[in-house]
Amino acid sequence: MTTQQLTQQIHAKKSFLCIGLDVDLTKIPQHLLQTEDPIFEFNKAIIDATHDLCVSYKPNTAFYEAYGLKGWQSLQKTINYINENYPEIFTIADAKRGDIGNTSSMYAKAFFEDLNFDSVTVAPYMGKDSVEPFLAFENKHAIMLALTSNEGAFDFQTKNVEGKELYKTVIETSKTWKNSEKLMYVVGATKAEYFTDIRKIVPDSFLLVPGVGAQGGSLSEVCKYGMSNNVGLLINSSRGIIYASNGTDFAEKARTEALKLQQEMAAILSN
Amino acid sequence: MTTQQLTQQIHAKKSFLCIGLDVDLTKIPQHLLQTEDPIFEFNKAIIDATHDLCVSYKPNTAFYEAYGLKGWQSLQKTINYINENYPEIFTIADAKRGDIGNTSSMYAKAFFEDLNFDSVTVAPYMGKDSVEPFLAFENKHAIMLALTSNEGAFDFQTKNVEGKELYKTVIETSKTWKNSEKLMYVVGATKAEYFTDIRKIVPDSFLLVPGVGAQGGSLSEVCKYGMSNNVGLLINSSRGIIYASNGTDFAEKARTEALKLQQEMAAILSN
Repeated sequence: MTTQQLTQQIHAKKSFLCIGLDVDLTKIPQHLLQTEDPIFEFNKAIIDATHDLCVSYKPNTAFYEAYGLKGWQSLQKTINYINENYPEIFTIADAKRGDIGNTSSMYAKAFFEDLNFDSVTVAPYMGKDSVEPFLAFENKHAIMLALTSNEGAFDFQTKNVEGKELYKTVIETSKTWKNSEKLMYVVGATKAEYFTDIRKIVPDSFLLVPGVGAQGGSLSEVCKYGMSNNVGLLINSSRGIIYASNGTDFAEKARTEALKLQQEMAAILSN
Repeated sequence: MTTQQLTQQIHAKKSFLCIGLDVDLTKIPQHLLQTEDPIFEFNKAIIDATHDLCVSYKPNTAFYEAYGLKGWQSLQKTINYINENYPEIFTIADAKRGDIGNTSSMYAKAFFEDLNFDSVTVAPYMGKDSVEPFLAFENKHAIMLALTSNEGAFDFQTKNVEGKELYKTVIETSKTWKNSEKLMYVVGATKAEYFTDIRKIVPDSFLLVPGVGAQGGSLSEVCKYGMSNNVGLLINSSRGIIYASNGTDFAEKARTEALKLQQEMAAILSN
């Protein structure tokens, strides 16, 4: 998918919501545990109930790998289900991969060719040759960690590197890499003011924003400082939507929560 | 496995060699492609031919994920084969994982419980809560990227952060984390002099060293500056050993290459 197609979808759906499919078997409705593939059945119900309210789904690979071979199979079935039934959706493998060049190429092959995701999240620590292989695929994107929303973000990301915070150096440097126009960035919603500085470096790039809602960030503040001319934001919500209920009404309640966010987004987009 | 047991194994085998199992179907002997699981058959032959010359095997997960479900199955069969037949071996899942706390816990579960590796490589960018979950398992270890051996290492890792290089800040900061005595570090062999400074920060920690051989690092130089009282080094070689031949004699030739390194190591240990 191109970023133009993503922006078109955002305007059509009046939503820039990304739903995180972080499925933990201890948190899903108990009646699903009797099915052959509880993770997939859970995802399928959530997707069917919310696909018109969001533009993106983001399974975090950790939650699938934790269940071994069976988990990887659930991931495969989930991405296939989205691609077959809702091809307009922008899919994100939240995998935070990165390795030396030839190894990153293998990860890119895994997520772009074998699983056919539109994008994958990557870690910046190993630099240029660890990220560029993810940018070599047509209409595929790498979403690089810049400023994350967790406590540990302040261990290194905000440290001063030759006059500016490391996360700014990371974003600036990445702009010199080959096919960098396909890069997007993870920017946590912990402090909306950060977006002002980031927009000076990447005025148009898409930013994937975790930390709105459960982790305390404000949607309107993030949009105020972070929205670009092409919208340029994907706001992620995981637990607040998918675990809204753990009864048989879980999909319906997930829709209710997604709808609240979509309506806030529609109001922001209409301004 | 404890680090004491690892050091005992090193002295018993007179080796601190780690063999990287980065299996690429385009590079392995063609006759294996007719078997049901070429990746596993290749690994099994390499392991049977070299297990007495090395103390560790390190499959890089990218090479397995690239083949999807079948690749994950090959990884599972490989780790099970090592654990069942050569339980003295220190196993490393070279996965370079890291995410927010509850998500890193899922990765730790995947590699320590589901697959039963002794250790997993992790990325530092997301800080403390992204690494600590990997240190909460008894006799399991996290091996954190510090200074890697690729070109991109110089993009951020060697940048000056408040008076010292980022990789030094990363190592120093990690020493304050819970159960940090279970941490090991990835330090590339590109410049042996780096080891002098690193040993001032972590005099005893094990360092996993890629980049000897194929990538140009010198074994004797690395040992001169990097060896600790408990040896404290795992020298990795992947391609130089596993792709020594692509004929039917591949395992035998892999043994020949591993033996050369083991003999150099035995000589260094006896000094």
